[in-house]
Order: sequence, then C-alpha cells, then structure tokens
Amino acid sequence: MSEERTEIGELGEFGLINRLTQNNETRIAGTIQSVGDDGAVIDQFGRQSVISTDLLIEDVHFDLMYTPLKHLGYKSVVVNLSDICAMNSTPTHITMSIGVSNRFSVEALDEFYEGVYAACQKYNVDLIGGDTTSSGKGFIISVTAIGEVTPDKYVLRSGAQKGDIICVTGDLGAAYLGLQLLEREKQIYLEHPDVQPDLQKYPYCVGRILKPEARTDIVTWLAEQGITPTSMMDVSDGVSSDVMHLCDSSNKGCILYEKKLPIHDEARELAYEFKIDPTMCALNGGEDYELLFTVSQEDYEKLVLNESISPIGYITEAEEGIKLETKGGNTHNLKAQGWNSLSNEKK
Amino acid sequence: MSEERTEIGELGEFGLINRLTQNNETRIAGTIQSVGDDGAVIDQFGRQSVISTDLLIEDVHFDLMYTPLKHLGYKSVVVNLSDICAMNSTPTHITMSIGVSNRFSVEALDEFYEGVYAACQKYNVDLIGGDTTSSGKGFIISVTAIGEVTPDKYVLRSGAQKGDIICVTGDLGAAYLGLQLLEREKQIYLEHPDVQPDLQKYPYCVGRILKPEARTDIVTWLAEQGITPTSMMDVSDGVSSDVMHLCDSSNKGCILYEKKLPIHDEARELAYEFKIDPTMCALNGGEDYELLFTVSQEDYEKLVLNESISPIGYITEAEEGIKLETKGGNTHNLKAQGWNSLSNEKK
Repeated sequence: MSEERTEIGELGEFGLINRLTQNNETRIAGTIQSVGDDGAVIDQFGRQSVISTDLLIEDVHFDLMYTPLKHLGYKSVVVNLSDICAMNSTPTHITMSIGVSNRFSVEALDEFYEGVYAACQKYNVDLIGGDTTSSGKGFIISVTAIGEVTPDKYVLRSGAQKGDIICVTGDLGAAYLGLQLLEREKQIYLEHPDVQPDLQKYPYCVGRILKPEARTDIVTWLAEQGITPTSMMDVSDGVSSDVMHLCDSSNKGCILYEKKLPIHDEARELAYEFKIDPTMCALNGGEDYELLFTVSQEDYEKLVLNESISPIGYITEAEEGIKLETKGGNTHNLKAQGWNSLSNEKK
Repeated sequence: MSEERTEIGELGEFGLINRLTQNNETRIAGTIQSVGDDGAVIDQFGRQSVISTDLLIEDVHFDLMYTPLKHLGYKSVVVNLSDICAMNSTPTHITMSIGVSNRFSVEALDEFYEGVYAACQKYNVDLIGGDTTSSGKGFIISVTAIGEVTPDKYVLRSGAQKGDIICVTGDLGAAYLGLQLLEREKQIYLEHPDVQPDLQKYPYCVGRILKPEARTDIVTWLAEQGITPTSMMDVSDGVSSDVMHLCDSSNKGCILYEKKLPIHDEARELAYEFKIDPTMCALNGGEDYELLFTVSQEDYEKLVLNESISPIGYITEAEEGIKLETKGGNTHNLKAQGWNSLSNEKK
C-alpha cells in the first residue's frame, strides 16, 4: 500500500468518482456512454439499452426508525428508475440485492419485497435477479435498473445549448421538508416516547420523502410531443447542485428565476413552520426525483401544455456563470449545497 | 409489521430467496429467464443479453487482513463474470458500486480499482457505471455484469437429461484449502505478530482464493467445437452443493465418481498437511469459480480433447438420488455442505 493517505472526505463524492474513473478505458465498440451521467448507454446489436445502479446503506441513506420497510423497498426501486428516466429512457428490468443482519426477520423482508413488487407493478418492470446475503450490521440495498431507448434518443447532461429553456417537473423541496419533519418527530419521540408523532398535518411532504415516484410519464409525454430535450438529469441532490452538474457537463452557464421555482403549498407552509426559506429548500433540498432538462426555444409552446413542467430559467454562456435572479430582482451566484453521501451530512 | 417472527437462518439462503421471489411476476415479454439461475436472460430487440449481480460485504465475504485490495477488486469483477460464463455467455460490461467507511483512504481505493481495471482489461469488458458512497462501517461491493449470447444458446441449470455426462473445468478444492491456510496464518499472526506468514509453499492454493479466474475460455471453446451443454452453472458453493442445485433444477439424479474429481497436486499436499480428506475439500470447498455442466453423450469425444475439462459422472433419473461412488467402490448420498453466506459460517 502506498504511504500517502488522502482522506476520502477531502475529495468529496464527485472528486472521488472522477479520480477512480480517470483511468477507465472503454474497449467494447458497443459502449456508447460510460460513467459520468445518470446511466450508461450500450449498443446491443443496433438497439440501445440504458443501465443505472445505486447502493443504499442503512443510516447513511435511510433511517429505519421512520422508514416503513415496504416504503423502503418501493423507494429503492424508484430512485433507480428515475435515473433511467433521466436518460430519456423507459425502464424495463431491475436486479435487487440485499444484505441483512440477523436483526431482520423473514417477515420484515417480506414487507420490504412487497414494496419492491409494488414498484415493479406500477412501473411495468420485471425483477430478474439479485443476491441475498447476510451483513454484519444493518441493511444494505443494491439495485441495478435496465431500460430501453429509441436509438440515439437518449439524453445526456452535456447537450445544453445557449438559449435553451431549463425545465423541471413537479415541485421542489417537499422531500427535504418531509425529512426534516420526520427527524423532528424522531427526536421528540426519543425524548418523550409517550408522545405520538404528528405527521398528519403534512401528508404531501412526508409522502415525497418516503414514497417518491419516477417520472416515466414525462418521458412518455415528451416522446408523444416529439420533443427531445437537449440535456437531462434527475433532481436527487437538489436542483442547485444538479443544475451546476448539467451546466458543467454542457460547458455552459445559466440563470434561474426564484419566482419560477415550483413549490407545493404544503411545503411552503412547513418551511414557514420550520422558519426556513422555501426557496432554499427548493434549491438545495434533494431527493425530489423530478426531471431537470433543457429544451430548445422552439419546443417551448408545446411544453406549456403540460402543467407538471415548469420553465425555471435558461442556459447562458459558461463565462456568465450559474446565477439565480431573486424575487427582489437581485442576481447572485448559485451555490451547490446538495447532499454529499460521503460526508454523511446533509447540506 | 406482522407479529410473527421467523429467523432468516431458519430458511437458509435458498429458502429465503425462494420465499422472497415466490410472488415475482414477469410482465415484460422480453424477460426470457428471471430469478433462479446464475443469471437472467432478457430479449432485447431479438438479441439476448444476460445479467448477473453480486453483493460482497467485508467480514462476510472477504477478510481484508489477508486480502490485498487490488486482488479484491479483481475478484469482485471475476466472480460476476463467472456467473455470465455459467449461462454460456460472454461478458461485455460491468457496473461497480462501493460503500466505504472513512477507515479507507483514497490511495486504498486506487488499489482496489487497479484490480477492477486489470480484470476489465483481461476479460475485455467495460466498466460503465456504479455508485460510490460512504458506509457506516466496512467495505461493501456490488457488481452487476452484463453479457451477450447467441440467441437461444444460453444454458440454464434445468436442461440436464438422463445419460448426460457431468463435466467440471479446472480443478476443485484448492481455493478452500488456500482460505484455510490464510486463516491459519492469520491466527498465528494475531497471536505472534513477529512471525511472518508462511504462504510461499502453496502459491497455487493461495492464488485460487485470492485471484480466481472466470472461464470465458471454456465458453469460447465450446462454441468453437459446436457443443452446447444441456445444463450449466458455476462452482461457487462447492461442487457437491452445486450439482444438487443442477439436478434439482433439472429434476434429475446423478452419480459422481470420487476418482474422477480433479484435484491439484498442491491442493492434495496441503489437505494432507491439514489432515483433511482432499475429496471432501473438492466436493464441499467452494469458491472454485469453475464451470459445472452436462453434455449429451454424443459430444463426449470432442470434450476429451480439452485437458481442462474433466468428466466426473453422469445424470440419472431423479428417483436414483444424488450419489457419489467412492474409490473403494461404495456408493453413498451426496450431502450439500456448501457455503451459506446467511449463517456466516462455512460448512
């Protein structure tokens, strides 16, 4: 082993991935898109498949104190399907591997798989394989999703052009606020086990963190309208961090408008209860699993027909930076404050 | 949660997998082979792909005290490629996800990935994706491998016919013996840290456990000879346990001949040093990553041309059971004593 010792935290998640994959060579002619996007694209006999994978670890990615196992199974599948959608592709198959300690009963795993199968049914995908093993400690989940895409209709993060409109689906920040609520109620419960958690007031936010959905509907709708986004990714780290990745990959800048950020009324209300700015939640929250994409201006008229798509800004030259125009009319640089699973800290 | 509590250990690995997948439905027309074999087979636009996945957890599947990280990276890839080979298919792509605690430095991960890339280069596969995250504790590895196969030439465990010859590649038991040696030297080291481990005497056995290879060469050779096995799997749990799976899937019995089991001279020598029966090691050792397959008798003449293939028995009717004929001429029932990763115990 080398004598040098660089801490992983010094590089951060993306720095580490860059370092570990910098020597990666592709030698198979069929590898169209390798590491570095939401999924990989491989040519298989003239048609194209998209592959994506995630590793989820107890107490890093989820807390079983407030995550029902059925929801966890559902979400584990959905977050991978979301990556396939982010490539403008349709998920078809998954593999599911789990590592479990003897803390878990067979009945607990039954519940987890109920959620897995519910997601497979809803999204019309097949569970085709996996691995089941023991872990010394905790619950470990690894999912790989496979999808198909019309040849050369896959969409990378790198295709945004100056003047393109930046769009996001659904609304932002509610999952983050739901998580804050669950964390607050967990603390109250730990201190006062006789107090029942109060989650009924914010069902939308709690649902967004515990049971997110993948936007296969948007992929279908875009195809029906004949719209191919110029770039796309899913919103998992927070739109602020994610739009920076998209702009970096495309070597472009952007301007977002605070007033255009879609925020659910209930999320706004919960943000006020927590005395935090709803805009900050929308920008930096993460775990929304919405789609962030850019389209050329000529597609704008078609887009406005879809109520679940919000234009939130447009693409500029790289030199113009990555900016937010506030409701007050000021413009400042966006900062990435998304989830960094390697530091185990949110924001 | 249900009030019943069944311990996972009560079902065992295969019982648990059966229970968790019993309600699995396939709804995609392209799903040719779902869970239950070494890999899944999916039809993609008329051509066929094979998918397999493994989850490896520190101190369950590997011990970093005697496993160099570069070897671990190599082996993590190879064991998945072996599953693709076991479907009579050629691996083309992998994804690699890792979870690491802050005990690991960036340089340590560099070493791990050196092994990953060495395996990709040797087997001509592309690393196309993955996930990198923190783990609260220990090293977690999840690999998914993708391969291609000539349409309808994939081989399942379930196709063995009465009279078919059972073959195995390479030799058996050396990996198990290598592991015993590493465990013995680890104990000596823990008790006497000044004593250097003595591994030089058995390089073959140590190499078999630390750096196994996938038998892509056999898949290629079989295709060149025009031989399609009637059933196939890889030897990961021990040939005794694995041949039982093959016979169960095919609803057949078998007879194996002790004198035909291929055992490397060095493995035999090490077994004697440990005062254990080399045949028991060959039958129950596990982690050989050789191919176990059946061919119809008419292919026998071609097979004997390949020195790395040994005929070890033949397929019988299910009622005849799963038998071993010893060197002394006695016949008794084979017992599965393979690795059960869910009980955390070997044998």
